[in-house]
Amino acid sequence: MQKPAKHIFVCTSSRPNGTQKGFCHTKEGVDVMQKFMEEIEERGNGGEVFLSNTGCFGICEKGPIVVVYPDNVWYGSVTADDVADILDSHIEGGKPVDRLLI
Amino acid sequence: MQKPAKHIFVCTSSRPNGTQKGFCHTKEGVDVMQKFMEEIEERGNGGEVFLSNTGCFGICEKGPIVVVYPDNVWYGSVTADDVADILDSHIEGGKPVDRLLI
Repeated sequence: MQKPAKHIFVCTSSRPNGTQKGFCHTKEGVDVMQKFMEEIEERGNGGEVFLSNTGCFGICEKGPIVVVYPDNVWYGSVTADDVADILDSHIEGGKPVDRLLI
Repeated sequence: MQKPAKHIFVCTSSRPNGTQKGFCHTKEGVDVMQKFMEEIEERGNGGEVFLSNTGCFGICEKGPIVVVYPDNVWYGSVTADDVADILDSHIEGGKPVDRLLI
């Protein structure tokens, strides 16, 4: 299979049993996920950039959380307005967005 | 924050809107997730090894899917019986489990 060059994980507090609670869900994690989906589709780089929603990362007070692998870069307090910046600077430009790092 | 040395992602087909459908869910992805939780707690390496459930990776025919980052190693058709092997060989021993690679 073709592996992703970058894999973006967005906490949407999706629990394995299907229920959904928690801070990232409350704090607009789903909006962030939605914005990433739209931007990646628009930029046409979905073949190299994978996007997944996740369950809780356990650092809810810093949410919404976005993690980029294989870089192991962790972002906190991410809003939908930050998504273009993460894609421009980090995913396409190779430079993580310092102001969002946790 | 302390970043994980290894981050294990298990597809449980958790959708951002809270509903849960899809192959990995049907194919015991939740059992695999549960087994990882138990094993990691038992081994006491939860500080270095993170575990997250995810939404669909889009390769359902190969599910249940397990991905290990930052290694970017992808496993398919994983069952609860494979979990100890992945932890022993890959996570603790540094050697991915060849028979499960996709």
